[in-house]
Amino acid sequence: MTSEHSARPTISDVAAEAGVGRSTAARTLGGYGYASEEVRERVLAAAERIGYRANALARSVSTGVSHTLGLIVADLANPFFGGVARGISDASRERGFDTLVLSTHEDLAEEVAATNVLIDKRVDGIIVASAALEAGAAGHIEQARSSGIPVVLVDRAVPGLDIDAVVIDNRAAARDAVAHLVAAGHRRIGFVWGPPLAERPRRRRDLVGVGTGNQWTDGERLQGYLDALDDEGLAFDVELVMVGAKTEENAQAEVARMLELPEPPTALFCTENDAMTGSLRALRNAGSRVGETMSLIGFDDSSWAAVMEPPLSMIEQPTLALGAKAAEVLFATIDAGSRGGAPELHTLETRFIARASVAPPNVN
Amino acid sequence: MTSEHSARPTISDVAAEAGVGRSTAARTLGGYGYASEEVRERVLAAAERIGYRANALARSVSTGVSHTLGLIVADLANPFFGGVARGISDASRERGFDTLVLSTHEDLAEEVAATNVLIDKRVDGIIVASAALEAGAAGHIEQARSSGIPVVLVDRAVPGLDIDAVVIDNRAAARDAVAHLVAAGHRRIGFVWGPPLAERPRRRRDLVGVGTGNQWTDGERLQGYLDALDDEGLAFDVELVMVGAKTEENAQAEVARMLELPEPPTALFCTENDAMTGSLRALRNAGSRVGETMSLIGFDDSSWAAVMEPPLSMIEQPTLALGAKAAEVLFATIDAGSRGGAPELHTLETRFIARASVAPPNVN
Repeated sequence: MTSEHSARPTISDVAAEAGVGRSTAARTLGGYGYASEEVRERVLAAAERIGYRANALARSVSTGVSHTLGLIVADLANPFFGGVARGISDASRERGFDTLVLSTHEDLAEEVAATNVLIDKRVDGIIVASAALEAGAAGHIEQARSSGIPVVLVDRAVPGLDIDAVVIDNRAAARDAVAHLVAAGHRRIGFVWGPPLAERPRRRRDLVGVGTGNQWTDGERLQGYLDALDDEGLAFDVELVMVGAKTEENAQAEVARMLELPEPPTALFCTENDAMTGSLRALRNAGSRVGETMSLIGFDDSSWAAVMEPPLSMIEQPTLALGAKAAEVLFATIDAGSRGGAPELHTLETRFIARASVAPPNVN
Repeated sequence: MTSEHSARPTISDVAAEAGVGRSTAARTLGGYGYASEEVRERVLAAAERIGYRANALARSVSTGVSHTLGLIVADLANPFFGGVARGISDASRERGFDTLVLSTHEDLAEEVAATNVLIDKRVDGIIVASAALEAGAAGHIEQARSSGIPVVLVDRAVPGLDIDAVVIDNRAAARDAVAHLVAAGHRRIGFVWGPPLAERPRRRRDLVGVGTGNQWTDGERLQGYLDALDDEGLAFDVELVMVGAKTEENAQAEVARMLELPEPPTALFCTENDAMTGSLRALRNAGSRVGETMSLIGFDDSSWAAVMEPPLSMIEQPTLALGAKAAEVLFATIDAGSRGGAPELHTLETRFIARASVAPPNVN
């Protein structure tokens, strides 16, 4: 268009000045891809001669602000984390930040690698739903923070870890749901998704707390179930708690087992969607009718639950709000430059959605 | 532990040498957070004096390999994209690459911003499910590639864009599904999720192709529906195609409208899960019974579909394989240094899962 360089030289101008191809110039200036040392020096010298402006990355190095957050979650295929990610990215975008998401498949080694990637990519803050069961397994999170990167936990607190967390009140939500079943007259209530123990323990105390391998959320939900039994003075029966792999298949097998007990449950509390669909498969195979011979309450509402026949009563988690709050807490820490005082546990409320899957016990 | 520096000086050693706090040294060396110019120089000089090794980021700048891929998708809360992301990250991890995911909410401006973030973060390649309807809107994708970053499209081809794409055969899948309904005796088949047009066009040709605002996948599925009608010599009726917002609420409203037609449909083909749940709401309100007075086939199988009463016949998408193939094509391009020849469209097959939601027409 013009024979002179415009006020703002482009990569093509640098390429022409250096006598290299445009993509070679772009790679060298951007710092990606391969270029020989000789070409590299030629391109950088050309860039300096014509006053090519450093790219956004170089600017972020010099200013120390890259305007990106990192989010580490266990499983992106779970719509719950999709909702949390959406809440975070909506809130971040209002502040001009982009969100980079990494998924760890509940694997602690992958979580450590993901944390290192985010440190390397110099994000301004990290939000993590950690697979660590306790502080001793969360050295990577401490490390990120001691490198100067603010960190906030989301969905899962990590007992003993001195870091702010934004969670829902899992224990109260579970307690309320089970209380609904008790109010409808149920005394034998199955709990689907228990700890991943290889063998069913005999004693209640071996089901809860450390050593069961339970995530914090799962442990809280089980504790809420036990709270409700205690509130109502109901007997605890370890046979009514699922143990083993947290899969749809194992939920189906465990509910099938419960249905064969001398005194089978008349109601089930399912703490995950896969626990619910596995339970529904077992109930169908046994000819048990939801809302008639079996009452059901699930956790984490889905548009499918509302169109089931009968529609399922569910606990709704505020996924977008959970993400938005985590972003808010993180930005407050970023703005303050450091987090002062004791770590805070921010707890959001859930909502119980009563539909038609709970009825009085009917043990025909 | 020792009064001499070990063979490999740490950030703490640099901090002590520079007379600053450990986190200040970490921030300066890592390039994140704030530090005054004076402190910065002091830390960098100290690092040089004691031979502190540059961090992984600096190494990746000098070697040009950061070992990260970027993935840009429309909506992380959609389990379909969660599955694709999982397929990509599993395949990348085998190669020692991490995957950074960004979600754009079907907004082209957000997609452009996400692409710039990935260029700035110097990923080694980008996989994108683009919101661009045609090549003219995909300048940012061309730009990434001309900066030397290989790009592969996933799930959605972009007509006219000269880039490899990995997709499913949406048109054949839709054609097969509708052929199933025709084989069961249906002649009036509703199509739920049509183009987002404000008004229902009168002519078939205004429903398909450019100017309808349809994503490539949606357009292909509609075309497959039309193919099946043509194959069977059935009349096309524009009243049987949903138009307007692609939401569960609008699907419900459009199916309610179809049920009021003088000749209502006896079967529905739902091309998304929200289209299915919206349809199910309308059918329930109208007292229409799935698998009896209304036959149904959906797209994108879910564990919920199998536990519905009756279980729903669905098209299953190979989400993990789609992601794995996209990663494979991207790595082939990265390994080759550049992509030669014409762009390829890699097409994966879907699977039709027959359950109990299709029966002969029964218009009582």
